[in-house]
Amino acid sequence: MKLRRVAIVFGVHGNEFTGTYLGRRWRRIPSEISRPSFETSLFFGNPKAFEINRRFVDEDLNRSFLRNSLASLEERSYEANRAKVLNAALGPKGDSQFDFLVDLHTTTASGGTMLVLIDDCPFNLCLAAFLASQLPDARIYYIPPGNSEQAYIVSLNPHALTVEVGPIPQGVLRYDVFEKTNRVVQLTLDFIHAQNIGKPVAVPRSIELFVHRESVLFPTDEAGEISGIVHEGLQDRDFEPLHPGQPIFRTLTGEVLPYTGSETRYPVFVNEAAYYGQRVAFSLASKEVREVLPLDACSTRAPQA
Amino acid sequence: MKLRRVAIVFGVHGNEFTGTYLGRRWRRIPSEISRPSFETSLFFGNPKAFEINRRFVDEDLNRSFLRNSLASLEERSYEANRAKVLNAALGPKGDSQFDFLVDLHTTTASGGTMLVLIDDCPFNLCLAAFLASQLPDARIYYIPPGNSEQAYIVSLNPHALTVEVGPIPQGVLRYDVFEKTNRVVQLTLDFIHAQNIGKPVAVPRSIELFVHRESVLFPTDEAGEISGIVHEGLQDRDFEPLHPGQPIFRTLTGEVLPYTGSETRYPVFVNEAAYYGQRVAFSLASKEVREVLPLDACSTRAPQA
Repeated sequence: MKLRRVAIVFGVHGNEFTGTYLGRRWRRIPSEISRPSFETSLFFGNPKAFEINRRFVDEDLNRSFLRNSLASLEERSYEANRAKVLNAALGPKGDSQFDFLVDLHTTTASGGTMLVLIDDCPFNLCLAAFLASQLPDARIYYIPPGNSEQAYIVSLNPHALTVEVGPIPQGVLRYDVFEKTNRVVQLTLDFIHAQNIGKPVAVPRSIELFVHRESVLFPTDEAGEISGIVHEGLQDRDFEPLHPGQPIFRTLTGEVLPYTGSETRYPVFVNEAAYYGQRVAFSLASKEVREVLPLDACSTRAPQA
Repeated sequence: MKLRRVAIVFGVHGNEFTGTYLGRRWRRIPSEISRPSFETSLFFGNPKAFEINRRFVDEDLNRSFLRNSLASLEERSYEANRAKVLNAALGPKGDSQFDFLVDLHTTTASGGTMLVLIDDCPFNLCLAAFLASQLPDARIYYIPPGNSEQAYIVSLNPHALTVEVGPIPQGVLRYDVFEKTNRVVQLTLDFIHAQNIGKPVAVPRSIELFVHRESVLFPTDEAGEISGIVHEGLQDRDFEPLHPGQPIFRTLTGEVLPYTGSETRYPVFVNEAAYYGQRVAFSLASKEVREVLPLDACSTRAPQA
């Protein structure tokens, strides 16, 4: 089975410039995202947030793709409406008119090239394994669905990849981050084309998966205000092991706070600017090794959710 | 002559968190900014901008200290009013009730510890020389007044220092930047106290001064939109020599644009997020060596502007 339609989404967060400027590049050089065996379409997620250089206008667009909300007629927010527009263009959720979806983001965390999956279906794991084999700083971060429905834009389609490249400040372009992000997209398109023409690329037999476990909050004071800073031994150490007892914060008055968990974990999104509002300092992942099924065993049609 | 009152200003830009959280630290540990020979006061520049995590509400507070504007009764903007409040508390401009003013900022540029002067009076040069001798990554950046009145908050007082530490994203705390900023403040207070008690610290006889010359704009397209990225050979190279012909931008479509000036300059504020709105990619400085007068020759009273 072949993939016929691929969607690249950028600018879902208005102050993550990289994808938006890649979109501008590709509109000028459409050949760069063209492959003979399928059609590629570009979608600008949140143009209004880009104009005001904010993550969002009213609420986070990348948490706005719940079925109930998409079905509601209520005019709740700019992003709730925008999600409906994007669901119409890219979805509908669970029965997407596209065969694959790539969503481009950046992070202030030192995550390198993060390949984020919210569905560990064989196709996504195959692709991620291929990308990780080609990109020295790539890590695969898997956010399992848990008990509740996922609300990310990539939840519109089980076959999807979220790309997060960092570190880069919000509201800034860096050529290194621009290039890395473009490279993920180029390799993704190459991978799909190779499969389409029956010449699948070689893929490692197993991959390292960082599986999201929990978020760790900043220390706060009586008023709920942040009262600590990520410890310098944790800053810029995304995906490196964090052992029980290791320092994770320094309070404003100098106290060192240790990691009180009982198992070694791997911090992700360490000191991401966008999460200060929810007081989230970083996330913790466990590390797993997963077998990768050979490419011809990968289903390319999304299972109905 | 002694300095009796020192003001520390932070949070003039709401999304430069470091100073604001240092302010919170010092409110809990006032002894850290106390010295026996003078009084230190803290001023939160733009609390409303901090609340919304933006540089400013209506316009840049740190460009709002022109005499005409301070004297005007017009209600032009939140920051125009805020500047009047701060002028009443810290000024009045040209006859400040304080003897020294420190203003704390951060930058997304890789400037290290930048000591920014808008007045090269002997006292400021003495202090900057001392600080630079103690801080391995410090650079002194002098912005001459030119023909027009300066509108920065530090223009309230000729004896003043603006501190800019980077790189750090907007809306983020980093312990390294927090520490460096605190260190500049501690050394500044030590310097003033030492002078006050007649035991002035040793100061180098000459200093390297980076003198602001011009700002360089991003390349733009027909619509005035940014169409290029700072070249990777210039990114993170603040204060390193830029020679004629060196690449400074890559356009979105891949063209390399060289520096067309005829003299070697030193880039400053390379890729500062806050300047994208004005399309400024970086500034250029020339490098000068300046003699530093011995401390006892420094006037500690501001000349009337």
